[in-house]
Amino acid sequence: MQSIHSKISFPFSTFNPRLLKSVPNWQRLAANVVKERIKGAITMKLDVEKLSSTSNTIYIADLGCAVGPNAFDAMQDVVHFIQQKYTLQCPQSNTTLQFLVLFNDQPSNDFNTLFTSLPRERPYYAAGVPGSFHRRLFPESSIHFVHCSYALHWLSKVPEELLDKNCGAWNKGRIHYTNAPNEVVQAYASQFAKDMEEFLCARAMEIVTGGMMTIIMPGLPNEMPYSQLAASLMYDFMASTFMDMANEGLVSEDEVDSFNLPIYTPSPAEMASVVEKNRHFSIEMLELTNPASLVDGPVDIKAWVIHVRAAMEGMFIKHFSTDIIDEMFDRLTKKLFMFTEQVESGYKDRTQLLVVLIRK
Amino acid sequence: MQSIHSKISFPFSTFNPRLLKSVPNWQRLAANVVKERIKGAITMKLDVEKLSSTSNTIYIADLGCAVGPNAFDAMQDVVHFIQQKYTLQCPQSNTTLQFLVLFNDQPSNDFNTLFTSLPRERPYYAAGVPGSFHRRLFPESSIHFVHCSYALHWLSKVPEELLDKNCGAWNKGRIHYTNAPNEVVQAYASQFAKDMEEFLCARAMEIVTGGMMTIIMPGLPNEMPYSQLAASLMYDFMASTFMDMANEGLVSEDEVDSFNLPIYTPSPAEMASVVEKNRHFSIEMLELTNPASLVDGPVDIKAWVIHVRAAMEGMFIKHFSTDIIDEMFDRLTKKLFMFTEQVESGYKDRTQLLVVLIRK
Repeated sequence: MQSIHSKISFPFSTFNPRLLKSVPNWQRLAANVVKERIKGAITMKLDVEKLSSTSNTIYIADLGCAVGPNAFDAMQDVVHFIQQKYTLQCPQSNTTLQFLVLFNDQPSNDFNTLFTSLPRERPYYAAGVPGSFHRRLFPESSIHFVHCSYALHWLSKVPEELLDKNCGAWNKGRIHYTNAPNEVVQAYASQFAKDMEEFLCARAMEIVTGGMMTIIMPGLPNEMPYSQLAASLMYDFMASTFMDMANEGLVSEDEVDSFNLPIYTPSPAEMASVVEKNRHFSIEMLELTNPASLVDGPVDIKAWVIHVRAAMEGMFIKHFSTDIIDEMFDRLTKKLFMFTEQVESGYKDRTQLLVVLIRK
Repeated sequence: MQSIHSKISFPFSTFNPRLLKSVPNWQRLAANVVKERIKGAITMKLDVEKLSSTSNTIYIADLGCAVGPNAFDAMQDVVHFIQQKYTLQCPQSNTTLQFLVLFNDQPSNDFNTLFTSLPRERPYYAAGVPGSFHRRLFPESSIHFVHCSYALHWLSKVPEELLDKNCGAWNKGRIHYTNAPNEVVQAYASQFAKDMEEFLCARAMEIVTGGMMTIIMPGLPNEMPYSQLAASLMYDFMASTFMDMANEGLVSEDEVDSFNLPIYTPSPAEMASVVEKNRHFSIEMLELTNPASLVDGPVDIKAWVIHVRAAMEGMFIKHFSTDIIDEMFDRLTKKLFMFTEQVESGYKDRTQLLVVLIRK
């Protein structure tokens, strides 16, 4: 399901929120699924009394915030849960905690829209921080809580091997690693591991000891082949649609061969492995949950394609021409309707990974 | 000179940096004039050792930042001076100070341009903070240094009395307080005092004890009538140009009567008075300096009008139609050329106020 909830964090993408106005807000639904789990993690594992012992201000970062409004909902919840935990820990305290939320995304993100959409009444001060979360964004030991929702599945770049015609990982005729040779899958997995190590190292410098990080992203059940996911079917159909169009001369085969989606869906075991290798964080929670959107009832194919398009069209436009994209998404929708049964049988349950880490 | 260096902080204005590409950067020149004075203030008056005793990170706010690049230059200088002072105070320290610069302006500011223009190599982490600096922007006691350059002369709003036909402060036939009745001048002065009190109260909450605030803005020598300033001549000519156009039926007289520039130029004595009344800050420096741009050699009238237009046209466009604005600025330029001698004789020396405050 990763494509459905994707946000702007990929540097070449331009998230288009206008497209989403006509369809349900799946990302909010997905966030609601884990809201109680995050509340539980904060209540059980976050020592707010200790965090606030040197400063009355709690610094929170939301990484990959896009333009709101889901980021605002999430931050309001996190602030509320931390306040509740503080009251629980320090019932006699006269101190009122204050919060500065640092909304981060790529410099190409539309921060103007984010800033003018900020809720007038909010329980925190707000700032925007432009930059890639694969690098340092904040001063050392300056952050108490990090939230990162549907952003870490975007790789920092397409693995270079995929474009090398002399390499086993050359991804000819595909745009992702669904049903691809093992070398292609490995190239993706390596890039993800490298990106995560950079991400965790940067956060380890920034988050204070005892600080918490919550990650929500697409996840693949352990031992399940990626091709069984409903999302992988979508990418497969995208690739075959592009190849149909190449056969008709609408795009060149080279254009399709040189395009790959920089998206990766790790399994819980894989995620645990990168975190443990990094050594800076203890894993407090790591589980697959339901993304809610596609699980209940039949798949709303039209809404699904609109969500995917909103997240990805900027990336396609960088590579193909705009009219090609219109044509591709039209054909894709028709194709998905023709294969509704196959879409319905794609694995949709428990494909959302929730990770809660504490900085050691 | 206030109009020349004006920035986007006025909520209704849209600063147009494109217009400034063809003319010298007067704001940078003006900043250079006070650079050494600010260095001196930091070296003599800022106890960096004390500020850094509880945190290795120094939090700096730049209020009314617009879209750079002048804000970037100023912040680079301030960081450099604070680092130097730290080395001077703590020569044996192994600690490396870190800096988070919080760039603030109205939510309508173009933060996207600011963020994509940020220097790649910079000695600080950067964030953007949308909001009016007449209200709270940051958590309590969270800021060590505030810089505010050419922004505080923008009033939070036009004084309401100016629009009341039954009031002595009705500003008929004028757009500012140059050569206006005392009631008009008083309405402006009261609004400035009220705005400054709100500004200082908000900053008093945010700046730590011993923290510094530097303010650069247009200033009027004590006891000098405002009408003697070169800038006041500009506003007078604007008003008379609009009235000419009203007589020709190009705008209505009502439109001119209901338009007023929300700009105020205080004297050092006036500034000292509002700061002392507020009681939260000690005045370490309060002096008039040269704004550099108009002082040396003959006035470059064309460049002057371009600077004024860049800062103000958004505000005019909100009130008048776009073609009226083109016509007004064309006529204004011609008029100023016709009265070059009068422009040259306007008082241009020491019309830039530099204020350095320490939070008590």
